[in-house]
Amino acid sequence: MAISLGELAERFDCELIGDPAVQVERLGSLVDAGPDALSFLSSDAFKQQLPSTKAAAVILKAENAADCPVAAIVSDDPYASYARMAAVVCPPPAYEPGVHATAFVAATAKVAESAHVAANAVVEEHAEIGDNVYIGPGAVIGPRCRISRDSRVLANATLVRDVEVGERCILHPASVTGSDGFGNAMTPDGWIKVPQVGGVRIGNDVEIGAGTTIDCGTVGDTEIGNGVRLDNQVHIAHNVKIGDHTAMAACVGISGSVKIGKRCMFAGMSGAAGHLEICDDVVVLGKGVITKSIRKPGAYAGLFPAEEARKWNRRVASLRRLDKLQSRVSELEKKDS
Amino acid sequence: MAISLGELAERFDCELIGDPAVQVERLGSLVDAGPDALSFLSSDAFKQQLPSTKAAAVILKAENAADCPVAAIVSDDPYASYARMAAVVCPPPAYEPGVHATAFVAATAKVAESAHVAANAVVEEHAEIGDNVYIGPGAVIGPRCRISRDSRVLANATLVRDVEVGERCILHPASVTGSDGFGNAMTPDGWIKVPQVGGVRIGNDVEIGAGTTIDCGTVGDTEIGNGVRLDNQVHIAHNVKIGDHTAMAACVGISGSVKIGKRCMFAGMSGAAGHLEICDDVVVLGKGVITKSIRKPGAYAGLFPAEEARKWNRRVASLRRLDKLQSRVSELEKKDS
Amino acid sequence: MAISLGELAERFDCELIGDPAVQVERLGSLVDAGPDALSFLSSDAFKQQLPSTKAAAVILKAENAADCPVAAIVSDDPYASYARMAAVVCPPPAYEPGVHATAFVAATAKVAESAHVAANAVVEEHAEIGDNVYIGPGAVIGPRCRISRDSRVLANATLVRDVEVGERCILHPASVTGSDGFGNAMTPDGWIKVPQVGGVRIGNDVEIGAGTTIDCGTVGDTEIGNGVRLDNQVHIAHNVKIGDHTAMAACVGISGSVKIGKRCMFAGMSGAAGHLEICDDVVVLGKGVITKSIRKPGAYAGLFPAEEARKWNRRVASLRRLDKLQSRVSELEKKDS
Repeated sequence: MAISLGELAERFDCELIGDPAVQVERLGSLVDAGPDALSFLSSDAFKQQLPSTKAAAVILKAENAADCPVAAIVSDDPYASYARMAAVVCPPPAYEPGVHATAFVAATAKVAESAHVAANAVVEEHAEIGDNVYIGPGAVIGPRCRISRDSRVLANATLVRDVEVGERCILHPASVTGSDGFGNAMTPDGWIKVPQVGGVRIGNDVEIGAGTTIDCGTVGDTEIGNGVRLDNQVHIAHNVKIGDHTAMAACVGISGSVKIGKRCMFAGMSGAAGHLEICDDVVVLGKGVITKSIRKPGAYAGLFPAEEARKWNRRVASLRRLDKLQSRVSELEKKDS
Repeated sequence: MAISLGELAERFDCELIGDPAVQVERLGSLVDAGPDALSFLSSDAFKQQLPSTKAAAVILKAENAADCPVAAIVSDDPYASYARMAAVVCPPPAYEPGVHATAFVAATAKVAESAHVAANAVVEEHAEIGDNVYIGPGAVIGPRCRISRDSRVLANATLVRDVEVGERCILHPASVTGSDGFGNAMTPDGWIKVPQVGGVRIGNDVEIGAGTTIDCGTVGDTEIGNGVRLDNQVHIAHNVKIGDHTAMAACVGISGSVKIGKRCMFAGMSGAAGHLEICDDVVVLGKGVITKSIRKPGAYAGLFPAEEARKWNRRVASLRRLDKLQSRVSELEKKDS
Repeated sequence: MAISLGELAERFDCELIGDPAVQVERLGSLVDAGPDALSFLSSDAFKQQLPSTKAAAVILKAENAADCPVAAIVSDDPYASYARMAAVVCPPPAYEPGVHATAFVAATAKVAESAHVAANAVVEEHAEIGDNVYIGPGAVIGPRCRISRDSRVLANATLVRDVEVGERCILHPASVTGSDGFGNAMTPDGWIKVPQVGGVRIGNDVEIGAGTTIDCGTVGDTEIGNGVRLDNQVHIAHNVKIGDHTAMAACVGISGSVKIGKRCMFAGMSGAAGHLEICDDVVVLGKGVITKSIRKPGAYAGLFPAEEARKWNRRVASLRRLDKLQSRVSELEKKDS
């Protein structure tokens, strides 16, 4: 949507250095943006790209304004300002209200008049679809699921049953919410399935990535707090509780009944073993696996970065000889004393 | 389903201490269960929750019966008894037989009269759907797939082609069974796809998690034994063979042509490199990767648990200096001798 | 498709030792192939299976021809020759042109007359489906996606929006291409979503595995080069660029803005941290995570293979004592000097 720099700056209470009448109607990086695009500078790593940018305007900190060859929108937090302004310039798509002719809505389901149910979507018994909700093509909203206003369930996503979704959430394609947890009792005759009868409760402003799976509770609910962000292919097991504004990057796996605090961050491929408690403000670095409850905020890690294979093979061999090395040192100490 | 404690105890041959006329109609944890709910105590970790439970009845070992403030159902294996009784109290949903008007069934496919094919599901050429099978909304059953009685293929799951599914299986949403294996021949002009023409054979009582993918065989079949349990987002490559009652937790990855024995357990994010044999009764702990064939039952591990990042960084640095440390010790030993 | 050995050998310019009139109509391993099946021997590991094979013919190197009890097709690269010939014997399925009655194609979309759109598939606004393209059951082709000739989008796959797919590509079931990247700005009030407005550009002859997710660019496109092969459950974040003929095995995760060269290979469960450059011809071994840019071709690794748990527990303990061991050795050296 085309909007003038003056209007943008005013709406988000930023100083504008430049012509308020200039219009932006798309977004761009400093390097690629054209004269109709809004860009931003939030990290010193990209500072040297500023002087040659062709953007219409750049959102930046006051300290960088002097180096900006085009209009500057000054913000204490350029990245957050960019996020807000970009959503005005490029709003999510709008949809005509209505249920597509090829979609199926069960007789007992309720769909708000302002909601959009796309082609070949399915809304099952006793489901409730709120105002201005978007249900994408091929999405399945299972029995008794309730989706609150302004949320979007994208193409081929599945809400299995008894899933409650708050307002303004986005559930990305092929995500599955409310699938059975992995509960099995071993017997001499093999595994017996333990019925998984709980639901999933998702707060407001939550985003669930493509291919992410969230299991229902065994009894009681799996709970995802307000403002939680889950990237693609994340796995959340049964009865996990995730505090508000916690974020997990792609391919994270959280085992059953883990309770995670607020504002935690899990980097890609990290995880947590079952039945732990992780306090607020914990950061788990890439591929780190938490195996004990954490009561102290801060960063946790457990990854050996990849090295050239021949070097790495020496590490593996060294580690395997380490026991022996300990003994050799003890021996030397004995002689030495 | 409401059922009396007397009937439950009798059906599963357990001693009941309490009023046999009391009805249960839901399931609950010791802490949350109300007076219409069945609960259980199988681990000492939850023992202190027993005296204050409000459940209708608790399934427990004889040794804990004295501490139970409500009716007690005595079992040598309370968790297994709970699994069996819970399936009576909360049976899986039942469906009306029939093909939904929005589903498509190819003319050459056979669907049993007692089967249910849900909205917008697709059953392709020469597929066979057995008695009392449930095909969920948006599920796709590809050419020549055969699904035996009482199995359930849930919403948006895909059986690609030539997949044989046994009785009483559950294939969870967005799982993919029978996709092409990753077979490519390198040439000076790039990769050439190696046709993947085998199928997948799945035994009875198998459960396949949400978002799990199982590739077809290159030639010959990928085989999943009876009673196998795969959690969410597991990956099974072409021509893998998994023995009866083996279980894999979420995010496990098994490379091509691996042969796994019976009753193995793979914890979350673990895996196995290609063309290995793993004997019966092997347990692979979280994130462990098997790189050699295993002939001895037991537990295998390979994970360094995450630690505070500054501690962990010292580990990484120490490991990188380990070669040098070895030399220093050798030097000391030389001088010492 | 039945074809004579003579025709196969001639078409692919290989020497045939044996009766050119013999027909093959299926594929088989050396052990399982019957007298109507084509097999191959490309690795010495399977050499001892050759003398007893019952195949119609075996593709092999000249040096193995003498040990072949059946017809031999001689090739310098038996695996590549097998890939080519197998595609003739077992070609991918062919489909009748046309849009299935239960599929939905938006009025502004263009579908080539020779294309096949299967049951319950959805083609959204302004999408373009090229000649001889196959759109599988339940697949969703989002707004403005363009799929070039001879490509196949299989069952329940999703192209979210603005995805360009080259010729002869295969997008496997439940894959998601063009989903929002994971862009969030932290503020005192929680995360703000950063609009993800770029697209995805996929070259020719690309294969994208089941359950794999590829995010759109934040601004600008995510780019997948020609001949790239991605196995199942791979995750490609926003603005990643992958060079021609690079291959990634299952469960690989690549973080945002990583630039990967040509002919790289990522083994299962490996990955790369954000904003790195990886040069041509890099091999990342299983579960290795690249954390720094790589400028030197070769193999990189970072995995400690799983060992018996009691041995492994000693490794973990040893590593944790390593700091102390360093000090003890320093102490000895001091005394010694």
